[in-house]
Amino acid sequence: MSGATEAAPPPSAAGSPAVTVDAFLGGKVEAVQPAAGHHRSGLEAVLLAASLDSRISGTVVDLGAGAGVAGFCAAARCKRARVVLVEREPGLIACAREALARPANAAFADRVRLVTADIEAPQAERERAGAGRDLADHVLLNPPFYERAGGTRSPAKARASAHVLAAGGLDPWLRAAASVLKFGGDVTVIFRADGLADLLAAAARRFGGAEVMPVLPRPEQPAHRILVRAVKGSRAALKLLPPLVLHGEDGSAFTPGVEAMLREGRGLASVNRAWHGGRARPS
Amino acid sequence: MSGATEAAPPPSAAGSPAVTVDAFLGGKVEAVQPAAGHHRSGLEAVLLAASLDSRISGTVVDLGAGAGVAGFCAAARCKRARVVLVEREPGLIACAREALARPANAAFADRVRLVTADIEAPQAERERAGAGRDLADHVLLNPPFYERAGGTRSPAKARASAHVLAAGGLDPWLRAAASVLKFGGDVTVIFRADGLADLLAAAARRFGGAEVMPVLPRPEQPAHRILVRAVKGSRAALKLLPPLVLHGEDGSAFTPGVEAMLREGRGLASVNRAWHGGRARPS
Repeated sequence: MSGATEAAPPPSAAGSPAVTVDAFLGGKVEAVQPAAGHHRSGLEAVLLAASLDSRISGTVVDLGAGAGVAGFCAAARCKRARVVLVEREPGLIACAREALARPANAAFADRVRLVTADIEAPQAERERAGAGRDLADHVLLNPPFYERAGGTRSPAKARASAHVLAAGGLDPWLRAAASVLKFGGDVTVIFRADGLADLLAAAARRFGGAEVMPVLPRPEQPAHRILVRAVKGSRAALKLLPPLVLHGEDGSAFTPGVEAMLREGRGLASVNRAWHGGRARPS
Repeated sequence: MSGATEAAPPPSAAGSPAVTVDAFLGGKVEAVQPAAGHHRSGLEAVLLAASLDSRISGTVVDLGAGAGVAGFCAAARCKRARVVLVEREPGLIACAREALARPANAAFADRVRLVTADIEAPQAERERAGAGRDLADHVLLNPPFYERAGGTRSPAKARASAHVLAAGGLDPWLRAAASVLKFGGDVTVIFRADGLADLLAAAARRFGGAEVMPVLPRPEQPAHRILVRAVKGSRAALKLLPPLVLHGEDGSAFTPGVEAMLREGRGLASVNRAWHGGRARPS
């Protein structure tokens, strides 16, 4: 989608399945992703990274980072930020490590740290792994998009799929985000649009000042995604923002603003001026 | 705003305060509204009525109808529908009665029934008043927009203001809507955009298949209103729709679609094609 597979599968981490190398932000980021069997990141991860102000200088934590696309794009865009990727699957951490060694990522690799930890693990365990309390100024969250239907999947299979939300839905994700965030820090989530009520309910317990941006495939179609930013400890009112529209009425081309985010690393706030409180933002 | 005060105050119902006569839908509807001291209906009421498919033939109940602007506009647009206005303030019911006697409203006056009842009254009491269970195919809801701040207002004063939500917020309104609706009937609510989470939470207990339409003052500004339609007993997923934009980037003129709703009684679904499941609708 937004990542073009630019190379045939290179020699991969020992014992890992076949991988592809996918380019993002016009080649400023290369991700190593399993060729099959896992969620493959694309548009959503890039939009999530584009939600950040490129001038930030604190720590960005990507929870459930997968192979690292969102976190890498954040590091590439925000040149003064440190980025921590938290992912429970060792195979995906191996992919992220392999990617960080690639020359294309040299500009930001030394600002990215990898942590193998389950976001649902107890606080003490996450702390030991390096994803403890008050670590983050900003959290990026691209949770699994779908609920597990019934109990038919084996735990191992369910764990293997980043498409599937565990029991408890979004709540563990927002709880983990609140735990790693400093007071006043923000979480930005990309999720299914039809999960809006669930997401607002999960966020309401710990966050305020939510900004909700509908993401529309085309100008006259309902949103299929939402981008929601919320601030830990805030009591500010919710804002429902003008939508981000991906494509025009017809055809497969992205709208110019979205194209600029995907290919050039432009920031969402420069494309949709209401994002992030309406403050004008560079790139 | 959308209603032009067309006449000097006429002789009003005995003992009632000064009123104005305000025209809506290009003169197809005239409302008699208290000149001061009450919420005066306008744009929101007309949008709410525009949300209905003009071809419906069942019963529309306007809960908390005020002086009747939304209900009258619904009756004027939906020529086969019966409309029941439920309002607890006798003075507003008197205004509505006075309006129904005006020649301008003759085309629909015989399809409108007035009920003096509090939406928070017990079911049996509402039943006796004529707003009981399973009455409605469609409910229109334009609840007070603001929470009561603290306990400083006298109960009498709080009751007098249709701007002020009583304790319990939106929940009593959605409960009353569910009570008067038939199974499978729908409620449409207009509310403050920053109350989105509260509205979704209150609706979740009794309704499904929500359609959420942000209403933006201008294309690049956050929504100030939301229009939400939901179906009693439905388990369908929420849809977040493309926004309705009231004005252009500059100036005070309405966008053409909104102008057509306000002046000609056009339907929302003909202006924003995603409304109401995306089924094309005649005006």
